[in-house]
Amino acid sequence: MRTLCFSLLLALLMITACKDEGEPKVAKSIESMKNKGLPALAIHGGAGNLKKLNLTAEEEAEYHRVMKQALETGYALLKEGKSSAEAVVAVISILEDSPLFNAGKGAVFNHDGVNELDAAIMNGESLDCGAIAGVKRIKNPIHLAKLVMDSSKYVLLAGNGAEDFASENGVAFVEPSYFFTEHRWKQLQEAKEEKDMKLDHSGLNNTDPDAEKKFGTVGCVALDIYGNIAAGTSTGGLTNKQYGRIGDSPLIGAGTYANNATCAVSCTGKGEDFIKLSVANDISSMIKYQGISLDSACTSAVQKVKDFGGRGGCIAINTNADIAFAFTTTGMFRGYINAQGILKTDIYK
Amino acid sequence: MRTLCFSLLLALLMITACKDEGEPKVAKSIESMKNKGLPALAIHGGAGNLKKLNLTAEEEAEYHRVMKQALETGYALLKEGKSSAEAVVAVISILEDSPLFNAGKGAVFNHDGVNELDAAIMNGESLDCGAIAGVKRIKNPIHLAKLVMDSSKYVLLAGNGAEDFASENGVAFVEPSYFFTEHRWKQLQEAKEEKDMKLDHSGLNNTDPDAEKKFGTVGCVALDIYGNIAAGTSTGGLTNKQYGRIGDSPLIGAGTYANNATCAVSCTGKGEDFIKLSVANDISSMIKYQGISLDSACTSAVQKVKDFGGRGGCIAINTNADIAFAFTTTGMFRGYINAQGILKTDIYK
Repeated sequence: MRTLCFSLLLALLMITACKDEGEPKVAKSIESMKNKGLPALAIHGGAGNLKKLNLTAEEEAEYHRVMKQALETGYALLKEGKSSAEAVVAVISILEDSPLFNAGKGAVFNHDGVNELDAAIMNGESLDCGAIAGVKRIKNPIHLAKLVMDSSKYVLLAGNGAEDFASENGVAFVEPSYFFTEHRWKQLQEAKEEKDMKLDHSGLNNTDPDAEKKFGTVGCVALDIYGNIAAGTSTGGLTNKQYGRIGDSPLIGAGTYANNATCAVSCTGKGEDFIKLSVANDISSMIKYQGISLDSACTSAVQKVKDFGGRGGCIAINTNADIAFAFTTTGMFRGYINAQGILKTDIYK
Repeated sequence: MRTLCFSLLLALLMITACKDEGEPKVAKSIESMKNKGLPALAIHGGAGNLKKLNLTAEEEAEYHRVMKQALETGYALLKEGKSSAEAVVAVISILEDSPLFNAGKGAVFNHDGVNELDAAIMNGESLDCGAIAGVKRIKNPIHLAKLVMDSSKYVLLAGNGAEDFASENGVAFVEPSYFFTEHRWKQLQEAKEEKDMKLDHSGLNNTDPDAEKKFGTVGCVALDIYGNIAAGTSTGGLTNKQYGRIGDSPLIGAGTYANNATCAVSCTGKGEDFIKLSVANDISSMIKYQGISLDSACTSAVQKVKDFGGRGGCIAINTNADIAFAFTTTGMFRGYINAQGILKTDIYK
């Protein structure tokens, strides 16, 4: 009987191994080491067709600099004994304060020329989570998302209501003009022209006008010295978005998810597809029910997005300090500090 | 080798069987029969502590009458060849038009004395979905959710933006006063008093003030003669809710999900817990990755909600016309017409 059990286990392990091998390699596995109470974290700053950005060497260096600063800040806090959720807020706040990314200061404009910001955070130990959608005067949406998690009985607050909650809880407001950047304003005008063109020459314009319009969502996943993971995501959503559209970023299970039993995930990409496929929760479910690795789960989820006609990527971490990145695009702003303290930032595939 | 494979398969089947057997029986399996192009559907009108409602025989009869009317209307449409999504809209519209349920006409009031309505619909064949949150002047939110699915490139629209979309697409508006019912107004005053009491006598009031405040969310899952399933949910959310709170109902993967490969699900209960556990997507994932039955997946998901300290229930259907109901509470308004054309409505456990 014991031999049978052993054979069974061995066979199962072999099946799992074969399965992993057979999966498409969209992602790169970065780290896989046992956590010894050492912290680790990873970030993304959006996935997309990076060739279109035509970054100069100086611009590239600036992206690397801000990502490094964010990672080092988060890592120092984790080392000090701050929780993974606290580190996620500090890291994302830095990315929100930079005009480089589509979140906070650098958020894109909606159709009405207004910046509507979404963010979410989730604690993998308790499954507590907080999210906000469509706020217009909050400097650091990720901070407000954590306040919703910590100080309300709700998970998701939207629009003016979310700002009322912020106001009652002493969050400082900024003028909507704080979010004005010339670059994003120009993108809105281009998007509007594109839309007009598309209406005028329906069928002639075969490019997806949304392809690069959500570029630059930011996210962070972290493991603290207590062995708890957390995930957060912050975005300005789609350039030229209308009708109070909410994307995947603030939706728990779609763009953001964390559970100590599986992983912490933050996604970026065409949000509607990530909602339809419940990408963040799907990664968690594959780990839980199929027993596959973090890296295989991320690779598989992102491949499903691609097969579905979508685009984007994700970052993930687990309590073993494994870190995974996966994306369908030619690049994703990303970086990590692993449990060995090694820092790396990357842009292209 | 062939014998080894066979033994392995047998062992795996035994493990799966044992696992199902060991799971707690929160749900009742209603139907399990092969679909032969015959339609089927199921509905819920909320799960909760029904003893508190103290329904008279006349009131009970009225609940049964409206549920029967909704089921028969949906079934007739499915028989005629209408899609599962079309049937879901027709069925939920009837429940929304009744003052009995916390959706449409009978929606509860938020803290400001306003009715804020949420709804979602998802098509299991294409994974197309549409949802709206926080609308105040739309008679049938489920109709608007379908319009978002069919006529926009977005999934989730919130607040005034969602109403702008409705307006541009010719949806008729009602005055907010349409949603006034004496019963719900009284509930709001009671909830506000309870909150004051709780603030005044903190610690003395040990009952969960939210226990019955989301009671009456409605949902429908349907299978059409083409073998496609769909799910929809509509709600007024929590009595006395604040800050533009969005619950699980309009969130794809939390309160609503549909995928022909697994199932169509609609949930009801304390929304925040359903979001944290991604209940609807979890049911789909268990079927997909664990290969368990629809009934076992619903039972397991609802047990997880209970273990997490939450309460509520779900209904589900698959392309085999299996129908499942599961709930943690003493009752759930529910009913079905199965593939044999048999109609049944129920209230208590």
